[in-house]
Amino acid sequence: MSFSRLWESLLPLGRNEHTGGYRRYTWTEADQQCRGWFRETAAARNLPVTPDNNGNLWAWWDPEGTRRPRRGSAARRRTGAIVTGSHLDSVPDGGAFDGPLGVVSGFAAVDLLRARGRVPVRPIAVAAFCEEEGARFGVACLGSKLLSGVVTPRAARALRDGTGVSWAEAMGAAGYDPSGLGPDDDLLAGIDAFVELHIEQGRALADPPGSALGIAEGIWPHGRWRFDFTGHADHAGTARLADRHDPMLPYATTVLAARDCADRLGTLATFGKIAAEPGGVNAVPSAVRAWLDARAPSDDGLSRTVAEIRAIAKQAAAGHGVQLTVTAESTATRVGFDLKLRDRVAGALAAAGIDAPVLPTGAGHDAGVLAARIPTAMLFVRNPTGVSHAPAEHAEPADCERGVQALAAVLEHLAC
Amino acid sequence: MSFSRLWESLLPLGRNEHTGGYRRYTWTEADQQCRGWFRETAAARNLPVTPDNNGNLWAWWDPEGTRRPRRGSAARRRTGAIVTGSHLDSVPDGGAFDGPLGVVSGFAAVDLLRARGRVPVRPIAVAAFCEEEGARFGVACLGSKLLSGVVTPRAARALRDGTGVSWAEAMGAAGYDPSGLGPDDDLLAGIDAFVELHIEQGRALADPPGSALGIAEGIWPHGRWRFDFTGHADHAGTARLADRHDPMLPYATTVLAARDCADRLGTLATFGKIAAEPGGVNAVPSAVRAWLDARAPSDDGLSRTVAEIRAIAKQAAAGHGVQLTVTAESTATRVGFDLKLRDRVAGALAAAGIDAPVLPTGAGHDAGVLAARIPTAMLFVRNPTGVSHAPAEHAEPADCERGVQALAAVLEHLAC
Repeated sequence: MSFSRLWESLLPLGRNEHTGGYRRYTWTEADQQCRGWFRETAAARNLPVTPDNNGNLWAWWDPEGTRRPRRGSAARRRTGAIVTGSHLDSVPDGGAFDGPLGVVSGFAAVDLLRARGRVPVRPIAVAAFCEEEGARFGVACLGSKLLSGVVTPRAARALRDGTGVSWAEAMGAAGYDPSGLGPDDDLLAGIDAFVELHIEQGRALADPPGSALGIAEGIWPHGRWRFDFTGHADHAGTARLADRHDPMLPYATTVLAARDCADRLGTLATFGKIAAEPGGVNAVPSAVRAWLDARAPSDDGLSRTVAEIRAIAKQAAAGHGVQLTVTAESTATRVGFDLKLRDRVAGALAAAGIDAPVLPTGAGHDAGVLAARIPTAMLFVRNPTGVSHAPAEHAEPADCERGVQALAAVLEHLAC
Repeated sequence: MSFSRLWESLLPLGRNEHTGGYRRYTWTEADQQCRGWFRETAAARNLPVTPDNNGNLWAWWDPEGTRRPRRGSAARRRTGAIVTGSHLDSVPDGGAFDGPLGVVSGFAAVDLLRARGRVPVRPIAVAAFCEEEGARFGVACLGSKLLSGVVTPRAARALRDGTGVSWAEAMGAAGYDPSGLGPDDDLLAGIDAFVELHIEQGRALADPPGSALGIAEGIWPHGRWRFDFTGHADHAGTARLADRHDPMLPYATTVLAARDCADRLGTLATFGKIAAEPGGVNAVPSAVRAWLDARAPSDDGLSRTVAEIRAIAKQAAAGHGVQLTVTAESTATRVGFDLKLRDRVAGALAAAGIDAPVLPTGAGHDAGVLAARIPTAMLFVRNPTGVSHAPAEHAEPADCERGVQALAAVLEHLAC
């Protein structure tokens, strides 16, 4: 099946008619539809699907039947698997490409290798990791973090979505057993490399002379911090300004400080999610809860950015008699991808006549989490507008086809 | 029944266990419980209840059977009704007193007059107006505005709550027919005076020497304006600051400008409700929708306040390539209560030995809406902390009893 037909078969799932954006949140109906699509797509290719204990899906092309050897065995050194894939979940009203492009391209690359008569001498898998965006339970890359032991099963089980449903409850309701959550060292030990293809999320490849594809150098350190401003609810029509403890005011100061600070330090800082309690038009709010997303080229730059924003927020809160607590919900230090694997990927692309510059990214990925355990690499597909996490996110069909060609070349080089 | 027992019978309805605040939104289950309480309380006193066509409830004490004479008839001049009451709905997590105190005190005053053997020569009614807070459908005093023709039935039917349910749908689902919405001139023509008792919502009566009760002079002009900032959604980890059109930034500038402007002009300005779309932690928001509540001692002061805030918001939005539209959702000009009625109320209180200074308020009330059609007056009960629209809202039981005494004295003077 061509890339475009496979792509179009996934496109309608979880799409909101009004916004045109995707709402594929983990363990929801839309997520179940995407999982059904994954299973059907794998079944049509005779690729057995095994969910791991954390709800990530794996479709195996394993002609030799050597999958999942024990760690340290001779078999492993010869036949460790090569894995590709990405994720199917989305941010609220996200675009079609962030995540799904890597999964669809993985299946399409398998199709291409088979059409060329290639047979791998080690297993190839296409994986779909869950809750990569953290849109429902607040922790990005949760599936790969559980798999690799970065997040404990206990912490994951207790995570709750905006309506109070826990990860364990939602997972169970979707028909997946949450009792076996946790790291799977055997599975990881059987993998020699993970190569994730992803849409580029800035304009790094867009400006002339441009290139359809890029190879990841590393991932900026990043994280999300929850700012809880707690004041006193009051009547908006009668409470004197001087008597108020309005948490919206230090929040506003913090938003402006975050932008200013990021601008000065050459980093990124964003407030994209906020809730005011109780949320009445005619009430001074009792509390404002907001989330800071911050990223920087270096760990030090990230620390400075967050420290400066926090200091200004504290001062502004104190000036209004408002309490502030800042909670780090998730943080990731700088990831540099495996240099040896990157060279092999670059070599495979060069041999196939594909030009792909090396570039960094500010976005987190499952590849960044897994890099702590196994050699990983990433391929980026050009994004002509740079827009991502929005319905307007786009990659040209021809560039997507080039991505499949490149991924097939890499898989062939590593596994055939 | 004593005030305190009647008060306690209403207290559990619609109370949120976690916050201790009330969530009595119009046409919800909590609202139905409050309506049931109203009907049972009236029935226990043999006061027939008639809902009007707009969902407001009226309990009639009409020993002479002269209720609702035709406009202009001789009967009207002798026997026009005296109405008291307030509302039962709440802001999100509001206090127990704002609204219910006036309804409970109305019934308690009837009890007191009967215990004294008084029989009115004209009808007395206790009324509960709906959607006074506008917490569900966004228009404050909607029940009294429909009754008096300030809001058209067509506009009301189309109002939608935060989940998209229309006023007409919600009203119908609650068992009330929305087809007859609109002004009821006959009902209004049969009323000679409306006296609303309400908790004071600032500290005007709190500071020594203090007084348990006050008489309203007038209501500050006020209104609510919706600010829609529309930018472009993007990825928080990859979109360069310079490329962004982030609506959160001009919103933050507007919040700070509103406070500064109100401070300079001696007015009030509050942002207590906000929604960011799509609301992902790792997404630059595409839109921020927020509501300004503004109040001022004069119509001119209110206009200046809103105009200055709007101008700064426009400029800040333009600086970020963000669109801004400002929509007045409801506005009310200054209300001065009927001077003749106020003198009669003051006279009745003085005759009963009750001290009650005259004071203005920044809060809107059904009495303010009805003042355009019938003579209205208001009594305020002391609020020792000044806190309102919050769970901590409070009035001392002894002050509430004094309120009932005062209301009974006024009703006796006007109707017996």
